[in-house]
Order: sequence, then C-alpha cells, then structure tokens
Amino acid sequence: MDPVEFDDEELEQIRRYEDFTTIDWIQDSKLERSRRIRNARNTYAPRRGPRGEVTIPWVWARVRGAADAAQTWFVVSLVGVCIGVNAAIISIVSEWFSDIKMGYCSDGWWLNQQFCCWEMEGDEVDGCETWHTWSTVTLARWIIFIMFAAIFAFIASHLVRALAKYAAGSGISEIKCILAGFVMQGYLGFATFFIKSVTLPLVIASGLSVGKEGPSVHVACCVGSLVASAFDKFRRSQSKTREIITAASAAGVAVAFGSPIGGVLFSIEEMSHTFSIKTMWRSVFCALVATFTLSAMNPFRTGKLVLFQVTYDRDWHFFEIIFFVILGIFGGLYGAFVVKFNLQVAAFRRKHLANHGVAEAITLATITAMIGYFNRFLRIDMTSSMAILFRECEGGGNVYNLCQTHAQWRISNSLLLATIIRIGLVVITYGCKVPAGIFVPSMAVGATFGRMVGIMVKAMYTAYPHSGIFKFCAPDVPCITPGTYAFLGAAAALSGVMRITVTVVVIMFELTGALTYILPTMIVLLVTKAVGDFLGTNGIADEMIRFNGFPFLEKEDHVYNVSVSAVMRKDLQTLSETGMRVKDVESMLSSTNVKGFPIVSADGSLTLVGYIDRSELRYVLERARKTRGRFSHTPCLFTPQGYDHDDSDGLEEDASERFFAPTTEGELQFWPWVNQTPMTVSPQLPLEIVMQIFKRLGPRVILVEDHGVLCGLVTVKDVLRFIATEKPEYRPSWDERGGLDGLLEEMWTWGTNLFSRILTWGRRIVRR
Amino acid sequence: MDPVEFDDEELEQIRRYEDFTTIDWIQDSKLERSRRIRNARNTYAPRRGPRGEVTIPWVWARVRGAADAAQTWFVVSLVGVCIGVNAAIISIVSEWFSDIKMGYCSDGWWLNQQFCCWEMEGDEVDGCETWHTWSTVTLARWIIFIMFAAIFAFIASHLVRALAKYAAGSGISEIKCILAGFVMQGYLGFATFFIKSVTLPLVIASGLSVGKEGPSVHVACCVGSLVASAFDKFRRSQSKTREIITAASAAGVAVAFGSPIGGVLFSIEEMSHTFSIKTMWRSVFCALVATFTLSAMNPFRTGKLVLFQVTYDRDWHFFEIIFFVILGIFGGLYGAFVVKFNLQVAAFRRKHLANHGVAEAITLATITAMIGYFNRFLRIDMTSSMAILFRECEGGGNVYNLCQTHAQWRISNSLLLATIIRIGLVVITYGCKVPAGIFVPSMAVGATFGRMVGIMVKAMYTAYPHSGIFKFCAPDVPCITPGTYAFLGAAAALSGVMRITVTVVVIMFELTGALTYILPTMIVLLVTKAVGDFLGTNGIADEMIRFNGFPFLEKEDHVYNVSVSAVMRKDLQTLSETGMRVKDVESMLSSTNVKGFPIVSADGSLTLVGYIDRSELRYVLERARKTRGRFSHTPCLFTPQGYDHDDSDGLEEDASERFFAPTTEGELQFWPWVNQTPMTVSPQLPLEIVMQIFKRLGPRVILVEDHGVLCGLVTVKDVLRFIATEKPEYRPSWDERGGLDGLLEEMWTWGTNLFSRILTWGRRIVRR
Repeated sequence: MDPVEFDDEELEQIRRYEDFTTIDWIQDSKLERSRRIRNARNTYAPRRGPRGEVTIPWVWARVRGAADAAQTWFVVSLVGVCIGVNAAIISIVSEWFSDIKMGYCSDGWWLNQQFCCWEMEGDEVDGCETWHTWSTVTLARWIIFIMFAAIFAFIASHLVRALAKYAAGSGISEIKCILAGFVMQGYLGFATFFIKSVTLPLVIASGLSVGKEGPSVHVACCVGSLVASAFDKFRRSQSKTREIITAASAAGVAVAFGSPIGGVLFSIEEMSHTFSIKTMWRSVFCALVATFTLSAMNPFRTGKLVLFQVTYDRDWHFFEIIFFVILGIFGGLYGAFVVKFNLQVAAFRRKHLANHGVAEAITLATITAMIGYFNRFLRIDMTSSMAILFRECEGGGNVYNLCQTHAQWRISNSLLLATIIRIGLVVITYGCKVPAGIFVPSMAVGATFGRMVGIMVKAMYTAYPHSGIFKFCAPDVPCITPGTYAFLGAAAALSGVMRITVTVVVIMFELTGALTYILPTMIVLLVTKAVGDFLGTNGIADEMIRFNGFPFLEKEDHVYNVSVSAVMRKDLQTLSETGMRVKDVESMLSSTNVKGFPIVSADGSLTLVGYIDRSELRYVLERARKTRGRFSHTPCLFTPQGYDHDDSDGLEEDASERFFAPTTEGELQFWPWVNQTPMTVSPQLPLEIVMQIFKRLGPRVILVEDHGVLCGLVTVKDVLRFIATEKPEYRPSWDERGGLDGLLEEMWTWGTNLFSRILTWGRRIVRR
Repeated sequence: MDPVEFDDEELEQIRRYEDFTTIDWIQDSKLERSRRIRNARNTYAPRRGPRGEVTIPWVWARVRGAADAAQTWFVVSLVGVCIGVNAAIISIVSEWFSDIKMGYCSDGWWLNQQFCCWEMEGDEVDGCETWHTWSTVTLARWIIFIMFAAIFAFIASHLVRALAKYAAGSGISEIKCILAGFVMQGYLGFATFFIKSVTLPLVIASGLSVGKEGPSVHVACCVGSLVASAFDKFRRSQSKTREIITAASAAGVAVAFGSPIGGVLFSIEEMSHTFSIKTMWRSVFCALVATFTLSAMNPFRTGKLVLFQVTYDRDWHFFEIIFFVILGIFGGLYGAFVVKFNLQVAAFRRKHLANHGVAEAITLATITAMIGYFNRFLRIDMTSSMAILFRECEGGGNVYNLCQTHAQWRISNSLLLATIIRIGLVVITYGCKVPAGIFVPSMAVGATFGRMVGIMVKAMYTAYPHSGIFKFCAPDVPCITPGTYAFLGAAAALSGVMRITVTVVVIMFELTGALTYILPTMIVLLVTKAVGDFLGTNGIADEMIRFNGFPFLEKEDHVYNVSVSAVMRKDLQTLSETGMRVKDVESMLSSTNVKGFPIVSADGSLTLVGYIDRSELRYVLERARKTRGRFSHTPCLFTPQGYDHDDSDGLEEDASERFFAPTTEGELQFWPWVNQTPMTVSPQLPLEIVMQIFKRLGPRVILVEDHGVLCGLVTVKDVLRFIATEKPEYRPSWDERGGLDGLLEEMWTWGTNLFSRILTWGRRIVRR
C-alpha cells in the first residue's frame, strides 16, 4: 500500500518540500503514477467495444483526454503571450530610459529619441530638431549623464534590496538548479517577477555593463511558474511545473535574441536537467508564441525583433579564416579571464559588500558613466552599439565614421579602449545586487574587438590590395566587411563566457537569417571551445553554482576511480522496523537534523527494509498527536506486519481516517508513508555510475547495501563534498590567493582605514 | 578487481557483442572509465605546479587532450563531407534517371532535361528543342515510360536482393534500435551503403511512391559507421560509434531537406536514445558540414539545397486558420490511415511475399507507372511536383495552368485524384524490398490535397470577394496563396505519419527561411497532433519496430499499475559462487541458452553476489582449455575468495597471463569477469520506474532482489512481452482481422488458385 490512498490535499501536505532541499524525482514519478491510476479508476475505464467498434464512453474519454492536453497548451500559450508582452514593454521602456539620460523630446516627454525623430530629418546619433539635449555644455551634459545613471542605479538597487532580494543577478545558475530539482521558495514568485521587470530597464539605462538577456530568462521563468501555479494540475506537481519553467526559459531567450529555435536549444543545452521530447515541443511552442507576440507588438517599429538583427549581402573569403581564428582565440581568453576574475570579485563581494548592495551599485554606475561618457561605444546602450558595429558599410552603416579610411586608426584605438574598459567593467559589475546578465556585455566586448580586427584587416587590404592573401578578392567590390568581424567576435565572446556552442550558432543563424555566415561562426566557436577546453574554463553559470554551493551535478562526466563506498556516509541514524516507541522516534528527530532515515530489520542484522523522510515522520507524529492525545509509549510500526501486504490495489477513500482514528489503540502505523523501494546500489559500484543514477533518475538519496545489509547512504551533497575535498585539481579558482580579490581586499582595508581615520579626525574637529 | 587489467584486444574479444543482442550501456561506461583511468596512469598525471603555475607536462597533457578531441572533430567533419558529396551525387543521378524515362538530350546523353534546356527558350514542362522525347505517339510514350519504370525497379530490387538485403526499406526504425543499443551486424556496413546509394536513384526514377529521405538517413548512418570504424578510438567502443551515428543521422536529414537545424532536431526528437550535449554539438557540426558540402556542389545549379525550397512574399490572414485546421485534420487522418493499413500490408507481405521481392517491386512500379502517367502530378518526380505546387502564382508559378481561374475545377479534380491514388500507392508500396522512404510521398500527398483546398478557397474568394470572411482581404493584392496551402498540407501529412512535430516546424522554417509561416505551420501541426492523439496513432517507425519485434522501449511513459515482480522471470539458472566444477558449468551452458547467469552464495540462501554474461563464461572456459588441457573436474571460483579484495588499484599488465598460466593448478578463476555490481531493484518497485532505469541507464538485465535474496531477473524483452500480452489495448492494429490484409489474402488465394489452374490447364494442353 502506498500514499495512493490519501486524498490530494493530504498528499500535498506531506510532500511539500522544504526550502533549499531537492525534490525526489523518483518519488515524484511514483506519485504521478498513482494519480494517473486513480484517475483511470475513478472514471470508468473506457475501451472500444468487443469488436473494436467505437463506443460513446471511448469517445468521451478521448475528448476528456484531449481537453486535459488542451489545458497544457493553453497554459503554455498564455505563458508565451505574457513573456512576449513583458519583453516588448521592457524593450520600449529601456530605450526611453536610455535616451532620457541625454535629452528629452519636445513633442512629448513619453517619446524616445527614435520616435521623437520619426520620419524627420536628422542624424541617427545627434537627433533632430524636436529632440533637445539637456544642455549644450559638455561638462553639464556629462554631469547630468552621471546623475541619471546614479539615480537609476539607486532606484533599481534599492527596490531589489527592499522588495525582492532574489531579483538580483542573472538568475540562470539558480534556475538551472531549480530545474534540476532544487527548491527555492519565492525565487520564481511574483515579487521577483515584478521587481525584476521594473528594475531591468532602469539598470540597462543606468549604463552598467550588464545585459537584459539573463534576467529576461529569469523573468520568463517567473511568468511560467506564476501562470502554472494558477492551475491545479501543475500546482500539485513539482516536476510538471518544472516542465513549464523549462519551456518558459526557452521563450525568455527567444524574445531576448529574437531567436525562437535558439531559445529552444538554449533550454536544451544549458537549462534543462532531464531531456524529454514533450518538454522540447512545449518549449518550441512557447518560444514561438512569445516571439510572435513580440513581433506583433513590434517594439522598435522596424519589424526587427531585436536591435542588432542584420542581413549581410556579401560572402566571405577563405583567407579570412586566419582572422576568424584570432577572434576565436580572443573569445576563449576573454571567457577564461572573466570567469576567473569575476569569481574572485564575487568572493570579495560576499565577504565585504553583502550589506552595501545599494552603495555598490551606485558607485559602479557612477564610475561606468564617468568613464563611459568619453568613449562613443561605451556611452550608448550596448544593444544599439552592437547594432551599429554589426552593420555593413554600405546603406547607412557609416555611423561615427566607422567606415572612413581616414578615421580608421582613431576608431581602432577607440574600439580597443572600449574593449579593455568594458572587460574590466564586466568583471567588477556582473553579480552586483541589481538584475544583471552577462550575455550582452560579453557580446558587446566581442563586437568592439571584432570590429577593430575588421577595420585593421580592411586597412591592410586598402594598403596592399593586390598582394599576398588579398589576391583572392574580387577587384571591384568591397572585399572585407568589418561588420561581420564584429558579429563573429560577439559570438566568440558569448560562447567563451557561457561555454555554450550550439545555441550560439543557432542564435547567430537566426540573427542573420542566412546560412552564409554559419561556417565562419562555427570555425570561430570551435576555436573558442578549444581554447576554453585547453584552459579548463567552465561556464560562468556552472562556476556560480559551485560558488554558491548548490547541490548540482555537472552534466559532463569525469573519472574519479573510486567506488561509492569511498563517498557514502557511514554514520547512519536508522529506525528499527518494530520495537521503537514514539518517544524514541521523537528523541531521534530532535537529536539529529538529517533529512531522512533508513529503516532496518529489528533483528540487528541491518537488513534494509525501507526509507522514510523526516518530513513524513513528523507529519505522522503531528497528525497522530491531534487524534490520540498522549501516546509517547505507543510502539511504532514501519513495515506492514499483520496487515494484508497485497492490499495495495484496494483504493479506499477513507484510508487516512482509518489510520488516525481516535479509537485505534494499537501501534502507530508509519508504514504507509515508508518508501519500501528506495534506490539501492552495491558498495563496489563506481562513483561515476552513481552520479549517472543521480543525474538521470534523480533520487534524493541512494542507499548502499551490501548483500541486503545496509552499509551507507549517499546524496548529491556527499558526492559534491567528495569532489571538492578529494580532488584538488577541481579546486575552485576563486580560492587561489593573490588574485584580484587580494588586490580588492587590500584596497578595501586601505579604504576603510582611511574612512575611519577621516571619521576620527572629523569627530575630533567636532569635539573641539 | 575488474577487467581493467587486461589489454584492449583481450577486452574486445570478451566484449564483442553477438548479433541481435543489446549492448549494456552501464558495462560500456564502466569499460570506458577503466580505459580513461588507464590512460591517466600510463601517462604521467599532469598537474599545475604547487603554486598553480603552468608546467610543461601540464601544457603537454593539454595539447594531447586537444589532439584527441581534434580527432573526433576530424571524424565528424569527414563524415559530414562524405554525406554531402553522396547526397549531391544521388540528387544529380536521380534527376537524370527521372528524365530519361521521358526522353533524351541530343547535346549529350548525360544531360538531364534541365541542363539540356539550360538558358534556352522552352517551357518547363515540355522541354526545348535539344530535348527529344522518345516518341511523339502517346501510346508509345506510355509504354516506354512503363518499361523504364519496370526496368529500374527490377535492377534496384535485384541488386538489393542479391547483394545487400539490409538496403531495403527506410531503415529509420532499425537505426533507432541500433542507437538504443541493439546490435545488427552489417546493417551499417559497406555493402548496405553502396547498394542503397546506387539503387536509390533508380527507385526514385522508377516512379514508385517512395522517398529518398529515410534511405538518405540510413546511407548517412552507414557513412558514419564506416568512417568511425576506421579509427581505433571508435572501433573499440560501441557507445562512441553510436554517438557518431547519431550525428550522421542529423546530417542525413539535413541534406535531404536542406535543413541543418531540422536535422539536428530530428536526431534529437526521433533517433537518439540518450540525449547528451556533446552528441548534439557533434550533430550540429556534422549537419552543417554536410549542408555546406552539398551547397558547394550545388546539384540543382539554382543555389537551392532541395528542389522544393520556397520564399513567400505575402502574409496570411487570420480567417485562413479555418482552412488550416482542415489541413491539420487531413494530416492526422492520413497518418492514422497509412499506419494502420500499411502494417496490414506488411503482415501480408511477410506471410506471402517474403521470397517475391523482385516481382513485387516490378509489379508495383508497373502499376504506379500505368496509372501515374495519366495524372500530371503523379507522372513527374515527387520533389519536382512539390516544387511546382508550393510556388506562388506570381513570377513563373503558373505551371500546368495551376493559377488559371478557368481551369480551377479541372485542376482540383486532378489534384484530388492524385491525392487518393497516391495514398493507395503509399499504403501498398512502403516497405517493399527496395530503398523506400515515406517522408516525401507523404509530403506529396499533403501537397496535392493542400493545393486543392487552396484552389477551392481561392475560387470562393474569386466568386465572393467582398462577403463574409473575405472582407479582411486587402482590395488590390492577391488574397489567397494556394501554394502555402500545399506547403502546410505537406507539413501536416509528414507530421501525421511520422508523429514528429518540432522537427517538421523547423524544417518548414528552414525551407521558407522566414518566421511568417511558422504560426500557421504550428496551428496545422497542433491539429494534426491532436487528431493523431485522439485516434491513438503511433509513428510509423515505432509501429515498425513493434512489428519487427525489436527490443525497444518507447519514449513515452504509460502507466501499468503493476510492480516489477509481475514482469520478472522467476525460473532462473544460477551459478553458485563456489562448489561448482567446470563440467557443471559446461552442462549448464549447453542445457540453456539464456544470455547470462546470476551468481549466488554457496550456502543455499540465494544471496546475490554477481552476474556473468554467457559470452564471458564461454570465453574463460575456452581460454583455460587452451592452456590447461583436461580440466573438467577443476572447481570454479566466482568470487575473489582468498585473493586480496582491495587489490583493485594494482593495474598489472600481465594479469590475464597470471590467470591462465599453465602452472596454475588451483581453481579456475571466473571472478575477474564477474560483474560484481549488477543493477538490482526491489520486487515491489513499480514497473514504470524499472522502465525508466532501462531507458535512462541502459543496463542489459536488472536483477530483482528482496532484502539481499535474488528472486528474479528482468530484461527489456520481458517488459515488452508483458506489455504485449497483458495489455490488450496495446494490441497492434495489424492483428485485427477483416482489414486490408484480409482482402489482400483473399486476392492472393484467388490469384494463386487461378495461376495453378492455368498451369494445370497449360500442362494438359502440352500433354495432348
């Protein structure tokens, strides 16, 4: 007999997972199975007639099934529509905020520069007549610019701090863990959704080197979770909710990059824990609905889904591969650099800045604005900057004299400076206490670097048009398209820092809409991947998971050469199947805080008979206390002894009542809540196979049993602890001393010393 | 101690899987682990220096790792290039064969109609001056047409029959099983590859209602397997070879549809058994390389990758959804109809036509040619027909008067007739003994039906341009595009018969290259899916797997409400860990043909201690026979008693020698080959969880153990047997009597009777 017998609320009460625990996928699928069996029993099991003819109950059951399936589609569509609308609003608002830093529209304060200058004469950069800049004096402009940045950063960080702590950061690593079964209550709640949606435009506009793509995934997942929780079917099942969240994450990327299939592949490559066709199909659907909603709202009024969508008319030449390889190497190095130092900054932040989130954000925004104002590629919004850098020179691509030969050195210097400064800003900014993605900043870094390389190659071509490799150029048409270098550089940097490849290829494919530049993209990403593998870099999301200590096993397989017996916990708290009294159980519960107890036979031989979760043990005790009064000497029964063992098919409605009836004077029966079939393995099994079981089947605990005798217990945390302590080569890089965090630490000490000295000095003056 | 200790050839000898068995994924990953540990030991384990500095061995190890990874990339690229070249050749040759049925080119026999008429005046249909039809008399043309078809079919089927039986059919279901671990020797061999590549153009040209897409996947997988087997790393590992085959299958679809991402999603949605990021990335790479090779060869000289690639200039209207729903319903019904009746034909074919493959193919080709000649949509190649049907009316789309209002009824009738006849032909043709895919015929059926609906809607619009739903049309531009209906109909029929959705959406997206028609495609496919689910249809590939009885678990989860104890085999042949003599083991091997033996403790308590495969048992016996001579009374040892159990880290080179040394007079030691950690479960575990273990971890057997005591054994075949016998609602549809096979059966009886009567009559005449 198993929990089948209790009504659903009962079940939920028992199975409500505590915060910061992992769900048990096997238990979850057992529950789901019970639910489906119960549904099948409750409704008359419909079959076709004896000769295969169609009967009315059969049709009716089919229709009901279809309606049930339709509900899921409805939920997924609704999620998609909400994500699309939300993304459009965020796009429009961010652009307005970005422009308001520079000036305002005299036709109406609600118009941004683009709409203000819609169908008017005027330059893309300097605006038109109805667009007024705040001041004509450079210094005043600069100060206003910085002021706006600081104010935006203040509002955003204050809102996050006051109302929704979980809205900070990118959210991708946490969502990965949630999809793998981790429970973080409120992480996908309404407060997070609302605050993250509201503060995201502010943060983007503040000019901080953070992107909206990661947060956009987080916001999308919030939408998925919120919409799903409005429906019974999903609220009851942790795993079904996670299916919707996976689909929502695909839609989040889809709207962020205007790339529906790229979003789906992102959800497969980066997010989803267990892969299933059903979830993939829902992801496709959700991503396409969201993309359509976005394109119907047409936030940029250009028909483009994202600002930096491009079309290239020209083909590339084989000799350009040499330069593409340079871009690939840059991407790999950039990724390794950012991951390493950003984690050191994160370690420093955790140590010293935990309570100074608002001050940190304002400081960063001020610094960014102060420096950024003087570089044309840093001053404007990162997506607009990419849109400019990606363009071909022909047909209006010559913004900022990017295509003029006479300006090529000045522009190159400017781009190099922008690359270097932006890398520094990304390292110190990513992870601060505002919504902050790393996708777009990385792409912006890659784009500036790539465009610089492109301009230099073009300069070489202009200088020596007929020599060496440039012989292959057709004589009368432009040979080198620097915009494509920017594009490939962006792909390389994105792939370098996230360590995703397929997704990037597809996103780039959907951004250009042509196969032409797929081969260069792939070459660049292969080089990036090779460099990353060579340096042993992990993706920043995975490193963040490790940094935060979430119980998450990486998808990649390593070889450890130990068996599970080296990893398992041996000091177990076990319950005996009979012979324990309630007070023994209670004292055990109070003396330890382990999450569950193996149950062994009473004869002292440690033969394993089952496993019970702490929460279920407590639930039964509390429930019994309500109905029975004093019962601390009542014996406990953990196996169905004396009860008909084969009764498991009799699904009785009042079973729970039966077990807790006040008249029952006998043993307290725990056995209906005992998991009689826990996952067991032999102690000699290689650790790698145990990790595969955790990853593919998802039990919460695996019991180690040697010929029927319990000898240990292993959880994901035990495995992670083993990896962290026993394998020094997997030592996380932020533990290495002497890095950036050391420097920051010294600066911090110096700064606080200075501050306290100033304070004492000030006090002394006041006292005088 | 485990097989780590023997050299690789040794291992291969032991682990060579027999034909028609399933590989054990867990054992395979244990072997892979041993190999990696051995490699790590043999080469000095390189670390960074004590203070994290870069050392030369560390760099060297990284470089070696990179080179090792590069080998994989080289293999994948090579596979991609070969697939691309092969696909281009097949395309060119098929077109030539198709055209030669109608006429020849006077400029050179090697030119097909298109190249013969290249840049010449002339109609697309009737050719140009240099293109000569075989005859000007219709009857003669008809006879020549039929003759060619019959000859092509004869050559193809004869080649298949004589040289490579496995080249027949589509191959998708078999490859699905192979990827899931099934071993079919020669199925991906050179003979299959060569014969299938050669006969495919012949079959296409013979006009049979079969497509080249399924076979193209099979051919691609052969290429993958052949190339991989040339490299040590892959030849040794069944699972690594399967990774390459998965990537090749993606490339196969990619070149067949000119859709690289669609191919990747096909390999994920339909083919691959276990999903891994690494394999996905390889699939993307392989698919893109193959697509590039194909586009570089440019077989159609149009820049298109496949004939039916299109671009639509116009948007669709919301009211058209009504008609799209009709297309979706048609797709679902078509799928259910074809799957049901094709399986009945397959049952009939297996019973009566097993040895008449050549005759069958010729008959089918003759019938198809005889009927098809008189319908313009059946006469030409299916892909050309689709290319014509998909087109917009503007810009040269008015072939066959498809766009003329005066011809609309005649064309509609012709299309309806083509739809009905083609459905019949697909039902009887798919599965005959030539390379035969079902993708393109299904799409062709959908295209003719869809175009018919489109023409009718257009006729309605022309008749009532301003009333009802047509109010929404813009006044001066064409409102209805019948080509898009054909396109959507093709998608619906393809999805209906294969039951794949995501792939079809992406393929359609890549064929049109625009997001515009994605929403209609999705609506159509959702309706198709709903209709298919309502009717309970499975994909034809899955049904074929079931029909052929391959050991394959479907990806979808069903609920069975039994525990594993109801499914397991209880009459086990066990070995005792000690106390058995060689002759006992030999007699056991000869008395039974089970694939492996559980090993239990000698004390009679049936405590499980391990599991040994039949092949390994026989290997040890044979090996010992060579070195020891007579030894039938030697005791056998299945557990390492008396040997140091913890010795498993001492990797000695000469271990195998040690065990078989002629001087050894003691027990015959089987224990190094015993799997001491077989997968075990409790008998109360729900069957669904056991199925999940099979699907996700892939053991060959699962032993059922009740508190340490062996009580049963379960394999995938046991599960499938249970599903087939215990669950009548899963009874396959070809078992139902009174269907098409009954009719065919009666015709067959009547035909053979008639034939034998004629024969007797003939003999009588001869005798007189």
